[in-house]
Amino acid sequence: MVETSHPPAVVLLSGGMDSSVLLHHVARELHRAPVHAISFDYGQRHRRELEAAAWQAKAAGAAVHQIIDMSFLGSLIKGGTSLVAGGAEVPDLTALSPTSLDQPPTYVPNRNMILLALAAAYAEAHSIRDVFYGAQAHDEYGYWDCTCDFLTRINATLALNRRDAVTIHAPLIAKRKAELVTTGCALGVDFAHTWSCYRGGEMACGTCPTCVERLKAFAEAGAVDPLPYARIRT
Amino acid sequence: MVETSHPPAVVLLSGGMDSSVLLHHVARELHRAPVHAISFDYGQRHRRELEAAAWQAKAAGAAVHQIIDMSFLGSLIKGGTSLVAGGAEVPDLTALSPTSLDQPPTYVPNRNMILLALAAAYAEAHSIRDVFYGAQAHDEYGYWDCTCDFLTRINATLALNRRDAVTIHAPLIAKRKAELVTTGCALGVDFAHTWSCYRGGEMACGTCPTCVERLKAFAEAGAVDPLPYARIRT
Repeated sequence: MVETSHPPAVVLLSGGMDSSVLLHHVARELHRAPVHAISFDYGQRHRRELEAAAWQAKAAGAAVHQIIDMSFLGSLIKGGTSLVAGGAEVPDLTALSPTSLDQPPTYVPNRNMILLALAAAYAEAHSIRDVFYGAQAHDEYGYWDCTCDFLTRINATLALNRRDAVTIHAPLIAKRKAELVTTGCALGVDFAHTWSCYRGGEMACGTCPTCVERLKAFAEAGAVDPLPYARIRT
Repeated sequence: MVETSHPPAVVLLSGGMDSSVLLHHVARELHRAPVHAISFDYGQRHRRELEAAAWQAKAAGAAVHQIIDMSFLGSLIKGGTSLVAGGAEVPDLTALSPTSLDQPPTYVPNRNMILLALAAAYAEAHSIRDVFYGAQAHDEYGYWDCTCDFLTRINATLALNRRDAVTIHAPLIAKRKAELVTTGCALGVDFAHTWSCYRGGEMACGTCPTCVERLKAFAEAGAVDPLPYARIRT
């Protein structure tokens, strides 16, 4: 592979707000090319996410958008999370304890290590050395696998590869959700084509943890979320 | 989960020699129970491995043997390895450079991080805290993801989990292949029901890197490999 100042990149793209902003950041601000966007279909309730991912990949000019079928994940973790169809109901945010160090019910065991391990394999097989993912640490509640420590340690593991080691980057990791809205607006990201709701409805519910968090972020950023909502908590 | 002195365990079981010996070691010498054996179907050429895995899981009294469909892996790494059907031909050992620090053509990019990340997710979802895998460092050639360093670093990553963190164990990591034969014989492992050959034939070929390595290990251990071979290099 010829080294250029703007080498290619793999971007993990869920179709949510964070990874959509990340994708446009990588393509337009970091000028990476070609960009390979990867999405994972793990039987998530919110399949609208994958449609949003495809839309954003095209909008950002990604050379490749690969959707990986991981439908086996549901049987692997057998209803241990409410994020996968067949799992428990997604609770309203009020039912969660945001200060708890435990994980919310939407947590998928070890999800980021699984997705990053696969993305790193893809990158290595395609002679790409950089993988970007949209970890964003200051969520309403924290996932252990979205932290700086996690990033450091998984990179220390990948660095043992005797071929050209792949590095994972999470440039949004220190940003608050409201800052992501501002960054996205500056980049011209069309948030109408992103999907965050954890419930599987036609419209975003407006009351599940991510909907509440998303609406709060737009409010803090002084922006209007273009997505229609079934109900907005007041 | 009630803590006992012999807690349950997840064992990564390929159906090869190493993981079969490991499975019997975990069940009979470490007295772990129940044992959940996990195998991955990633379109490997040597599907006989999976039949061997099922046989060994039953022989070792594993409570569960789950085969995870990872057939997407081939498209993810698009012929970047000869271990997956559709990849390059498996070369004879003579065509390899055993002293090279590069990986052999049978190397699957980042395979062990992928499989261990999935096994850790399975363990966490089932409230099991220990995952065993058959890394065995003194192979004819070395995989970077079978080293002690790799094990240490992936465990450091998993230790960040705020729930009960899962730990990966590789009790065979310091053993030479010939020692594994001896250990397996002492445990009564029926090596006729293990499969190592990387080619997809009816009989083990006897000339691919793993066949050569396996035959050498049996010879060194002063034991006879009960598997029939198509051809044995002299």
